[in-house]
Amino acid sequence: MAIVYAVGIGPGETECMTAEALAALKKADVICGYTVYLDLVRPLFPDKEMFSTPMKREIDRCRQALQTAMEGRTVAMVCSGDAGVYGMAGLLLQLQEEYPGTEVEVIAGVTAALSGGAVLGAPLSHDFCVISLSDLLTPWEVIEKRLRCAAEADFALAIYNPRSKKRSDYLQRACDILMEHKAPDTVCGWVRNIGREEEDFRVLTLKQLREEPVDMFTTVFVGNADTRQIGGRMVTPRGYEKRM
Amino acid sequence: MAIVYAVGIGPGETECMTAEALAALKKADVICGYTVYLDLVRPLFPDKEMFSTPMKREIDRCRQALQTAMEGRTVAMVCSGDAGVYGMAGLLLQLQEEYPGTEVEVIAGVTAALSGGAVLGAPLSHDFCVISLSDLLTPWEVIEKRLRCAAEADFALAIYNPRSKKRSDYLQRACDILMEHKAPDTVCGWVRNIGREEEDFRVLTLKQLREEPVDMFTTVFVGNADTRQIGGRMVTPRGYEKRM
Repeated sequence: MAIVYAVGIGPGETECMTAEALAALKKADVICGYTVYLDLVRPLFPDKEMFSTPMKREIDRCRQALQTAMEGRTVAMVCSGDAGVYGMAGLLLQLQEEYPGTEVEVIAGVTAALSGGAVLGAPLSHDFCVISLSDLLTPWEVIEKRLRCAAEADFALAIYNPRSKKRSDYLQRACDILMEHKAPDTVCGWVRNIGREEEDFRVLTLKQLREEPVDMFTTVFVGNADTRQIGGRMVTPRGYEKRM
Repeated sequence: MAIVYAVGIGPGETECMTAEALAALKKADVICGYTVYLDLVRPLFPDKEMFSTPMKREIDRCRQALQTAMEGRTVAMVCSGDAGVYGMAGLLLQLQEEYPGTEVEVIAGVTAALSGGAVLGAPLSHDFCVISLSDLLTPWEVIEKRLRCAAEADFALAIYNPRSKKRSDYLQRACDILMEHKAPDTVCGWVRNIGREEEDFRVLTLKQLREEPVDMFTTVFVGNADTRQIGGRMVTPRGYEKRM
């Protein structure tokens, strides 16, 4: 059976990769993915064949991976974070039927909601939503509706792609929507360059977050009504304190 | 500095643990956690000191971990999945200030939404919510409200603790609420004993899910309006197909 592994490699440094992910990369004859992610795994496999396609050419990349597998070689497609969460696993599975004899195996990884959460403390210890503010593939109206409903139900949130080059006011607009239901002093946080040398984070209020110049390498966290700042960390209680 | 590591060990077999998590367990003088999770890591560290407290005695367990650290020994608290998502990281951070000189470091892990998602295919490739149906620490009204808002905004969902011994109809009630906004033929799935030998899964409709006798070792996935069954897998498109 010709396999394409969709491999979540975690947030950055390879120490955040699972043993299972590392094993899949070892088994692969060819590793493919977005160039930035290939650069992260290349030091581990300097002699392995690798290929990439530019950003926004994800369909081509997946087709090339499946074609390579159909020709008899084992392929690993590396994805930042988890292979499923805004990753390539779904697209590979959608295209796979056009490449008879191939199989897609998904290897989970630590997505930024979790790795960034660990940096901040425990912002997602209760029910939470993950929302991307990128409107490249999703109408902005859908994103707005999801933000509004998430706030109304007092979910904690992890927000991916909080800013893009073209529209610098996404996060401001998101904060305004969230503040229709969430208090301006709701505890929030952001983490930049998770798992890399230049990693940085800040805990702040929702009102402050609205004015924060985050960039595209940042993951944003918004607390629920119980979220607190404790010793500089962001902590969403699960409710054990009711037993204290 | 006296450290307590809050370590997410992933879904089951230790091959789903990150290198960082394994390193923290190695560094620890003492490993603690719920007995079931200790049994998973004991084969790796047969000679290491371990302690546990019964289920529902999480506060005692965290206090004992912090006390042990304050006395100068490095402690690792193991959590199933991620250390933050319904894990012990938050409670440790809440209690930490009572134990001067201690520090809590959170090590992220692959939570069931991701590991179970990988088994099913790619159910969470677009915006999603994670909700626990356990009302031990959360009023059922809050859970209902979150389910309703999640469905209204067409989120995909990962549902933790879909059933407990005391109330066997939680998942039925949740499905009824979701069906106020989601179609009965919405593609859903469940995964049981993720990452263990007896792992099992099924892809089915929301209407079928309502009648499904899931147990407490099961994680449930509910798709959004675009989620499809492809080759027996559950796939939520990210939207790339609009470019095809």
